Amino acid sequence: MPEYLSGHVHLGDDLTSVVILDQTLLPSRAEYLTLRAPEEMAEAIRLLRVRGAPAIGICAGYCLAALAEQRKALPPDQFRVELHRLAQCLGSARPTAVNLSWALNRLGLLAHAMGAASPAQIAAALREEALSIHREDIAMCRAISEHGLTLLKDGDGVLTHCNAGPLATSQYGTALGPILLGHERGMNFRVFADETRPLLQGARLTAYELDQAGVDVTLICDNMASMVMKNGWVSACFVGCDRVAANGDTANKIGTSGVAILARHYGIPFYVLGPTSTIDLGCPTGDDIPIELRDPEEIRSKFYAQPMAPAGVKCYNPAFDVTDHSLISGIVTEKGICRPPYRQSLAALFQ
Amino acid sequence: MPEYLSGHVHLGDDLTSVVILDQTLLPSRAEYLTLRAPEEMAEAIRLLRVRGAPAIGICAGYCLAALAEQRKALPPDQFRVELHRLAQCLGSARPTAVNLSWALNRLGLLAHAMGAASPAQIAAALREEALSIHREDIAMCRAISEHGLTLLKDGDGVLTHCNAGPLATSQYGTALGPILLGHERGMNFRVFADETRPLLQGARLTAYELDQAGVDVTLICDNMASMVMKNGWVSACFVGCDRVAANGDTANKIGTSGVAILARHYGIPFYVLGPTSTIDLGCPTGDDIPIELRDPEEIRSKFYAQPMAPAGVKCYNPAFDVTDHSLISGIVTEKGICRPPYRQSLAALFQ
Repeated sequence: MPEYLSGHVHLGDDLTSVVILDQTLLPSRAEYLTLRAPEEMAEAIRLLRVRGAPAIGICAGYCLAALAEQRKALPPDQFRVELHRLAQCLGSARPTAVNLSWALNRLGLLAHAMGAASPAQIAAALREEALSIHREDIAMCRAISEHGLTLLKDGDGVLTHCNAGPLATSQYGTALGPILLGHERGMNFRVFADETRPLLQGARLTAYELDQAGVDVTLICDNMASMVMKNGWVSACFVGCDRVAANGDTANKIGTSGVAILARHYGIPFYVLGPTSTIDLGCPTGDDIPIELRDPEEIRSKFYAQPMAPAGVKCYNPAFDVTDHSLISGIVTEKGICRPPYRQSLAALFQ
Repeated sequence: MPEYLSGHVHLGDDLTSVVILDQTLLPSRAEYLTLRAPEEMAEAIRLLRVRGAPAIGICAGYCLAALAEQRKALPPDQFRVELHRLAQCLGSARPTAVNLSWALNRLGLLAHAMGAASPAQIAAALREEALSIHREDIAMCRAISEHGLTLLKDGDGVLTHCNAGPLATSQYGTALGPILLGHERGMNFRVFADETRPLLQGARLTAYELDQAGVDVTLICDNMASMVMKNGWVSACFVGCDRVAANGDTANKIGTSGVAILARHYGIPFYVLGPTSTIDLGCPTGDDIPIELRDPEEIRSKFYAQPMAPAGVKCYNPAFDVTDHSLISGIVTEKGICRPPYRQSLAALFQ
């Protein structure tokens, strides 16, 4: 396997397993897990051991391919039924990220198109397709990074929310891509990373990735973004996306819409960066995006040495929110930067 | 001592100590501390064992009175020098809350006005003055609660940030006062409490107080306020204040300005509640309010079972931010509700 496909999510050497960096253990430990059973694969996605919409898509592709390889000795009819069941099992792990179902559908359609081919042939084709998804993601991140970099100049301050760096994708990442690419070229940026409660992807992953890359990063609590902007330290906000509706409304990590509203208030441009696979033209507006509600214990007790809220107190814990298209200055894809009106500019990407 | 002065901050029975509920241990443990040395008193304020601008003022008054009582056998000249030194020691514990210096100045001026009185007489007078500060705070909170309650109707949703309840003040509190008073009268409110990173006063204190009082409270992460407002669940935002400038600019817990900007975006009224002692007409605008910067470890590691950010990563940790007066719908004091333009309405409170 070429070296560039051996990142934090890759197919096991035996072709029947998937190896992932367990992101829930960062930044304390960098530990890899080998996933073989469909249940542990779905669990890894559900528990955010692998997270970030593009990385979830890559992982789901490898998972289905590995499961198909495990079952290639089945009779063709049984193999097809089993493949369908496995795709459903993986697809139900998280409801919001479109890349999950996008990757599974892509493999499913390929299997379907192969008609009378043998299970072994189908398994091999699914593996190639999963590798293609990964390769394409690397190329997409690179292209997004190049386009996004045109929005920055040397010395700029950038605020980001959650994690849309290499760990969420492959290589450069999406929202962090322009920063990492510019940094490689000798540019200097000052990045403010929202810690991103409740799961602290900003503290655990974004600060970790940028620190490792040698980028000037300052960690803040989510509620400090307003003050950082008021201080004049932010030239632009860069965030990733989990699903973009046809009108430009964007689902991303909870808190993103708040950052966009603050940016508008302070006159700071707010950019969404993501591959076209994240754009869902079948979804007319943000109101049509299902929002995952997660366990209250993530707010009350997770990560803490002891619970930080009274036992049993109600919590509301949506994993995502929807940023209204009117608050978004541009949507940066691998094909270029879409500007309002998004209904037209996003549709044009697919023509 | 009358029963109503035996709350979470009160003078010790020996009159030479101050007893406080250690708020840093809530909600897991309700533990009282007896403070005798000036250094442990200043430390209790600095470490937020007692916090909330009015409660800090009450505590500082009791502390100086207790220290004076301890030293009443000193020769008068030495007593005066010592009193000045002790007031400075207590006053330097936290820079932003005006109530701290307000209470200490009030006692200092009284001592000064007593001229040739004996140290024992001065100590007794300071104790009475400290009790008056506490009694006045109880009456002020009650009056603020009555005025604030006129802004709510049965069934309203209220979003609050940080803690401005009884634990921050006395009895009803300020921002939580109207809710607790209305609840006593049989009204129902649905309160959304921002957890308020990094020190989680919303989770540890506000959720605790409201839960104990039987109020319907839902805890959220700070970055969820936008979504809660977008869902139409919030009729008004109620927050406390640490210092209000002459033009209405308001320093309060970090994140308050973000809540105000969101409320403006969603067309939700945003109210600041606090006693007139929090209004500093000597401070022309928010730009003149010093903002305390606190330890990065509060963001990186405090409360967690293990550090949640890479060791040594830079953090920016302001304890407060300033909400622009233009974002504030009203400032609720014990004397009534001030409306814009605040330069006039706030000045009128003191005429």
